[in-house]
Amino acid sequence: MTTPSDDLRTTPLTAPLGAVVPSSVPTHWYNLAADLPEPCPPALHPGTREPLGPEDLAPLFPMALIAQEVSTERWIEIPQAVREVYALWRPAPLVRALRLERALGTPARIYYKYEGVSPAGSHKPNTAVAQAYYNAVEGVTKLTTETGAGQWGASLALASALFGLECEVWQVRASYDSKPYRRMQMETYGATCHPSPSDLTAAGRAFLAQDPDTTGSLGMAISEAVEVAVGDPHTHYALGSVLNHVLLHQTVIGQEALAQLDALGETADVLFGCAGGGSNLGGLSFPFIGRNLREGTTTRVVACEPAACPSLTQGEYRYDFGDVAGLTPLLKMHTLGKDFVPPPIHAGGLRYHGMAPMVSHAKELGLLEAIAVEQDAAFAAGIEFARTEGIIPAPESTHAVAGALAHARAATTDEVIVIGLSGNGVLDLPAYHEFL
Amino acid sequence: MTTPSDDLRTTPLTAPLGAVVPSSVPTHWYNLAADLPEPCPPALHPGTREPLGPEDLAPLFPMALIAQEVSTERWIEIPQAVREVYALWRPAPLVRALRLERALGTPARIYYKYEGVSPAGSHKPNTAVAQAYYNAVEGVTKLTTETGAGQWGASLALASALFGLECEVWQVRASYDSKPYRRMQMETYGATCHPSPSDLTAAGRAFLAQDPDTTGSLGMAISEAVEVAVGDPHTHYALGSVLNHVLLHQTVIGQEALAQLDALGETADVLFGCAGGGSNLGGLSFPFIGRNLREGTTTRVVACEPAACPSLTQGEYRYDFGDVAGLTPLLKMHTLGKDFVPPPIHAGGLRYHGMAPMVSHAKELGLLEAIAVEQDAAFAAGIEFARTEGIIPAPESTHAVAGALAHARAATTDEVIVIGLSGNGVLDLPAYHEFL
Repeated sequence: MTTPSDDLRTTPLTAPLGAVVPSSVPTHWYNLAADLPEPCPPALHPGTREPLGPEDLAPLFPMALIAQEVSTERWIEIPQAVREVYALWRPAPLVRALRLERALGTPARIYYKYEGVSPAGSHKPNTAVAQAYYNAVEGVTKLTTETGAGQWGASLALASALFGLECEVWQVRASYDSKPYRRMQMETYGATCHPSPSDLTAAGRAFLAQDPDTTGSLGMAISEAVEVAVGDPHTHYALGSVLNHVLLHQTVIGQEALAQLDALGETADVLFGCAGGGSNLGGLSFPFIGRNLREGTTTRVVACEPAACPSLTQGEYRYDFGDVAGLTPLLKMHTLGKDFVPPPIHAGGLRYHGMAPMVSHAKELGLLEAIAVEQDAAFAAGIEFARTEGIIPAPESTHAVAGALAHARAATTDEVIVIGLSGNGVLDLPAYHEFL
Repeated sequence: MTTPSDDLRTTPLTAPLGAVVPSSVPTHWYNLAADLPEPCPPALHPGTREPLGPEDLAPLFPMALIAQEVSTERWIEIPQAVREVYALWRPAPLVRALRLERALGTPARIYYKYEGVSPAGSHKPNTAVAQAYYNAVEGVTKLTTETGAGQWGASLALASALFGLECEVWQVRASYDSKPYRRMQMETYGATCHPSPSDLTAAGRAFLAQDPDTTGSLGMAISEAVEVAVGDPHTHYALGSVLNHVLLHQTVIGQEALAQLDALGETADVLFGCAGGGSNLGGLSFPFIGRNLREGTTTRVVACEPAACPSLTQGEYRYDFGDVAGLTPLLKMHTLGKDFVPPPIHAGGLRYHGMAPMVSHAKELGLLEAIAVEQDAAFAAGIEFARTEGIIPAPESTHAVAGALAHARAATTDEVIVIGLSGNGVLDLPAYHEFL
């Protein structure tokens, strides 16, 4: 891999015991747009259907993020203040799943890249910290957002606390009710959290008028958070997935994993990542896909999505809104339709009707594959993982684990499998409890 | 430091950004008994009041742990199977608390040694894994234990799953009711969890007869778990704190911290550790105390205990039982009396009437100091820590944070402060919620 992160050396001295920790945090984010054989279709203005200009996004995002959204530079430098925060938990460990391999009796070597070591317990702070930083630098004083399972809301609450911003979160009602700990986590960081739909916004009131008993959706919550942000010049909105700049920030995951595997002399044959909005999958896989494109390596990438919300495997690839109210730009993506309300599955972070345009585009170009995983199979895999490797995976991550386990069971050669373990399931234990 | 762990090198390349990760897991545990100027008073048989022999402990513990309990060898080799499990999350990070320092405006340099990266979220697996291993090797098929906040129970459940043992846990009623996630965590690892006192044991039935509404205590739960273990030759008991072998296993914490500080060219002036049964405090501090004794360094050690359960600062130093029913050996320790029932404070892991004999002995010898911290001060410190460093500390750990913060605020020189951050508070968020 050609990278300016020349201090991203690895010290695999613990390799015989399982975990590998490289010695430094990446200095740059990796931008897949620089290596794509054809460009990703642009976001369109919802009124004119013309490609968005920076001024269209300015009410929502700081200029630095708008620039990243459309950048085609391969390497974008990570500000030192962001790297300082990353260093609280990054580089995240890459662990050889020896016990899991033995339990499966597979000839494959299985590694997992574990993002649950962040203070929020998932990969989400990788972008939350960057977004809070750029907003603070540009004088914004408050961020709004939506959250599903609560991992993104907690991450933005954390990042807002670190950069001195107010934070207001709309949480999908189904998760707000079933996962009170996430709300308490946001509040401990000083944020405010409302169930969505709420009666605090015009969009929320309209959703409630349609169906007072709705369990909500990420699309609805986005509408609410966006509405509040556009109404106040000192307030911006932050999105936890889908957009190019979000996936960009997450590429620290894949860059570290690449370097960690390189240090072990390993080459990944296949990656399994869970796919909801696409940020963990993109963050893990884009550096590998970029290397495939530049250097002719052949690492396969398998997106694992829930069978109950199968945008990549069942959705149409077309322009659609990111939210339910139709306030957002139109994005070219695999979508189940903006009005699709997924069942209240436990993997709240995967309950989104669309897929990141960059992930969708990569799928269309044949750069990645997708499978759908049933919830029961996902939890069974999660429990098998917990009882062999110790970590209880987030319900989202169990989809990637299930994909990898099925693959490893069928493996006949010593191939290298990498699982993107996006977070831990410590705050999702009631979901495991129901499954058991 | 003289240590056979010569592969415990550190690679502080991320030091400018905050975290330091040494390159390997310690190869040996450190035994303070080898360096004490006078030996720790022995445990006594509850009937004869004579020093215990190995045969007295055999119904409860495997012979390897009994040998460790009375060993005076300085270095005890860690079995490879245990090191392999440690490597899933160890070495645990030592992090420079730069944001916290700036917020306090202190000239001191503050580091924290963070044990919350373990799958159970605390330091407890360091000994759970070792205990499960030795029991499995000696043919035991089931472990029983007690737990307060649930960190120990979850850790033993985890370790039992990894070594193929059954696990049955009695959880103090106050925590069982207020912290259902911990029980779900134990069950996800395949363990069984009962509230204590329960009607499953003679001891439990007696406690319930005395007070049907009791909120329970660690002492009561120990009585129940011990009773079940002694009644079955294939079942042993595992204790999560207090005993010498438990503190021994925890010394991986302090050894790593010493090496990490050495790699930075730093010498700790003062350590702050929370003290309940004493295992986190002992594990962090004993390697430093040992160095003080051998090499004349002068690192101060401050045990931070809850004002509501102040065994070290208010208790008597005398022989007492470890449990309420009087089934355990007599231990020479600082105790509030075996019948002391602490109020149901949030730091469930610190609700124990006694203190580890080795910690008590060290205090008597002037090798460590102790302070008591009020619950509100502890939580206020925990929130300050969360909003600057990102990690929400376990309620137990907030006592150490509070001690360190008060010290740092008063500091006038660039001294080096180390906080033992025993775990994260993700499953204790209702406690923060109540405080807020």
